[in-house]
Amino acid sequence: MPQLASTSLGVINVGLAQFAEAIAAAGGRVTQLDWSPPALGDRTLGMALARLTRHEKVEPANEKAFAAFLGVSPVLRGVGTAGETLANMGERMLLHAGPPVAWHDMCGPMRGAIVGAILYERWARDAKAAQKLAASGKIAFSPCHHHGAVGPMAGIISPSMPLWIVENSAGGARAYSNFNEGLGKALRFGAYGPQVLARLAWMQKSLAPALGKALAALGGIELKPLIAQALIMGDEVHNRNAAASSLLLRRLAPALARARLPAEKLAQVLDFVAGNEHFFLNISMAQAKLSLDAAHGVAGSSMVTAMSRNGVEFGIRVSGLGERWFTAPAGAIDGLYFAGYGPADAALDLGDSSITETAGFGGFSMAAAPAIVKFVGGTPEDATANSLRMRHITLGESNVFQLPALDFRGAPCGIDIRKVIDTGIEPVINTGIAHHDAGIGQIGAGLTHAPLACFTQALAALEIEVNA
Amino acid sequence: MPQLASTSLGVINVGLAQFAEAIAAAGGRVTQLDWSPPALGDRTLGMALARLTRHEKVEPANEKAFAAFLGVSPVLRGVGTAGETLANMGERMLLHAGPPVAWHDMCGPMRGAIVGAILYERWARDAKAAQKLAASGKIAFSPCHHHGAVGPMAGIISPSMPLWIVENSAGGARAYSNFNEGLGKALRFGAYGPQVLARLAWMQKSLAPALGKALAALGGIELKPLIAQALIMGDEVHNRNAAASSLLLRRLAPALARARLPAEKLAQVLDFVAGNEHFFLNISMAQAKLSLDAAHGVAGSSMVTAMSRNGVEFGIRVSGLGERWFTAPAGAIDGLYFAGYGPADAALDLGDSSITETAGFGGFSMAAAPAIVKFVGGTPEDATANSLRMRHITLGESNVFQLPALDFRGAPCGIDIRKVIDTGIEPVINTGIAHHDAGIGQIGAGLTHAPLACFTQALAALEIEVNA
Repeated sequence: MPQLASTSLGVINVGLAQFAEAIAAAGGRVTQLDWSPPALGDRTLGMALARLTRHEKVEPANEKAFAAFLGVSPVLRGVGTAGETLANMGERMLLHAGPPVAWHDMCGPMRGAIVGAILYERWARDAKAAQKLAASGKIAFSPCHHHGAVGPMAGIISPSMPLWIVENSAGGARAYSNFNEGLGKALRFGAYGPQVLARLAWMQKSLAPALGKALAALGGIELKPLIAQALIMGDEVHNRNAAASSLLLRRLAPALARARLPAEKLAQVLDFVAGNEHFFLNISMAQAKLSLDAAHGVAGSSMVTAMSRNGVEFGIRVSGLGERWFTAPAGAIDGLYFAGYGPADAALDLGDSSITETAGFGGFSMAAAPAIVKFVGGTPEDATANSLRMRHITLGESNVFQLPALDFRGAPCGIDIRKVIDTGIEPVINTGIAHHDAGIGQIGAGLTHAPLACFTQALAALEIEVNA
Repeated sequence: MPQLASTSLGVINVGLAQFAEAIAAAGGRVTQLDWSPPALGDRTLGMALARLTRHEKVEPANEKAFAAFLGVSPVLRGVGTAGETLANMGERMLLHAGPPVAWHDMCGPMRGAIVGAILYERWARDAKAAQKLAASGKIAFSPCHHHGAVGPMAGIISPSMPLWIVENSAGGARAYSNFNEGLGKALRFGAYGPQVLARLAWMQKSLAPALGKALAALGGIELKPLIAQALIMGDEVHNRNAAASSLLLRRLAPALARARLPAEKLAQVLDFVAGNEHFFLNISMAQAKLSLDAAHGVAGSSMVTAMSRNGVEFGIRVSGLGERWFTAPAGAIDGLYFAGYGPADAALDLGDSSITETAGFGGFSMAAAPAIVKFVGGTPEDATANSLRMRHITLGESNVFQLPALDFRGAPCGIDIRKVIDTGIEPVINTGIAHHDAGIGQIGAGLTHAPLACFTQALAALEIEVNA
């Protein structure tokens, strides 16, 4: 003790920072170590977590699920029509983003997009009639995810809409997404004006057949090399798809030329693809869905295989927990707004596009995309910090997708519900912001998080499942 | 003194690190501050530097030159033929990279490219006859730079070759470059086999007219926004042009479709442009040349307006020093080699492409392009460090071209010969490596530096000039 007192003393404070501040204020040397109790200090949850940690069923199940996820080789195979392509797609059915939700509970932009889809299908003559029809119970509503599909924002897919078909070249499984319309006034943001409907009609009649021909001639496009290159070029393939869209056009353009369309029709297709930096988003979502589906259904696995929002609820699915959704209220988005709009105008978190984060893209790969901060807010340092933080809640790193700013380390992927509960770190999501009213469209973009409550419910369910 | 001795002592060592190492070895606390005497400790040079520092003529001249450089708005205006487009282009003249050099002094790849150009022009029947003709004195050789043009590597431009025309939309001045053939066996690396000549013939007959039509229909393409976007997407627009080439294709493809070529001809043009990630390089060089030409000829300015290499000598030009070249022996390149090749196979530093570094791209903007290290060697940290170091020798930062990894600070540009001498920091250059023999081609890529000796000569000349 006398020896201790005669030397210079330093303090390491673990946890609550106030103690460290007091020592520092008194002139002491103090090192603050961030720490908080596991499971946020919740005893019941913490005990469940402890029982699931190094669990004889969960560990091998996660290894199997993660390996299946990494093993998928997604190929952009072709173009189909929702009514003909999707399993269990009813004649008067509309698919939507997120977990199940009834018409009367839906948020404004989803209702707007449904009105637009009804007009697009000519099931009603005008918006008022469309709303009446939607409320009548004569239209079936079903989540995209229940049909192997994903759709950004409102995620409305109607029977006549063209879809991307993404196929696992190692196995043949498929996942689907609709086509991207571009920014601003678009169906997926709840807009349904004449311009929106005219564009959707052109996409169905001209764009989709041309792209289908080009893909058929190419025999498909391998997506992993293309996305890996896009991450090197500053995309995170959720809210930034500038490089991926360009690389896709580079592959498609010569094949489109060989499709022998009339010159002006070809030029219009090229104009449309070249003019939309988000064109690749829906393909990115479908390949993420395909890879995660391969990891789904492994008994005992705590790996998250879907995160999605319907504008009212945020839902997750877990590999070892079947088709159940674990939901919590959808959150607000912290972001940048287009001129004339602000947080008071914003809908809550919406869309299937968080399937990209579930697969390690978007917020998880923000370190690859410093320029995303001009769109969603923050600094390049924040973007890198997000990728680093996601390492704490994931099973591993991609063996294909590298983040240059992290010295080419792999993108963190494979969210483990146990790690989310243990650290209290919520998965970060880059996302667009829709106006809360039907018929308006996108008003900004920003960051949000998957609510912890989804994960606590899933953890409790998993404990029951593995001990059953 | 007694008080000093009783407290803990620390040392700051300025300059030679050995002193600091000795203190550290003895257990002392030491902070090393990097420092070296200005002008590398050369007294005469240092005095000249001192006399040119805060000089009443040089400072305003540099402000004027730098503002002129920043003020250029380069537009990709169209396509021309060297013989018809370039000033003072003789009928039997071949242009080459770098400062002037005679046939008997030229390096292997430049000789190879000259043989290829003679065969391309059908001035000789075979390689042997071409070499004889080149040595006969009947062909005039002249630097590209003397005709407002730039060419990568050997930089050979012959009268029939198609050229890019880049024009300042604010003023009408023009600069030119040839078309990029792709990697590997290419004329600019000294290859002249039948494949090389067949490709050049196709480029002249099919590619150039198609691109010319597309550009005419577009009315030109503004290059600053395109390049700014490419820097955000991981290019440094010297050895990495993946994004810029894709963005260019995005602009060109719809216009090419409207040019109503036969489908297969159109597809071949799109294939060629889409298949070459370096396609934009020559355009990047021409716009850099255009911007730097605007800064050239300001009496008293110490701003570098060209850095170029002919494979034997490295030469620089300075704004206030007219048409003179200040030369030193060309250096070796520290880089990565293609399989089967090594440093013993390499030609020395070669090409006009260092015009990109002179304008703040390439090595100066490496912080934008972490993936470049897979091509030229090093780590992403090295890439960022290069951009930071170049700040010490430049007049300012670009007001358009941002480097995301440096929190969107502008690219360092406008090399000041005084700052190079003061700091001893040589401009860094990313570059391709050609085989030292004629007829082989590219064997790697890496980093090199502009030799200090060019700058010391220029400084001496500037002192005479401003005091004349």
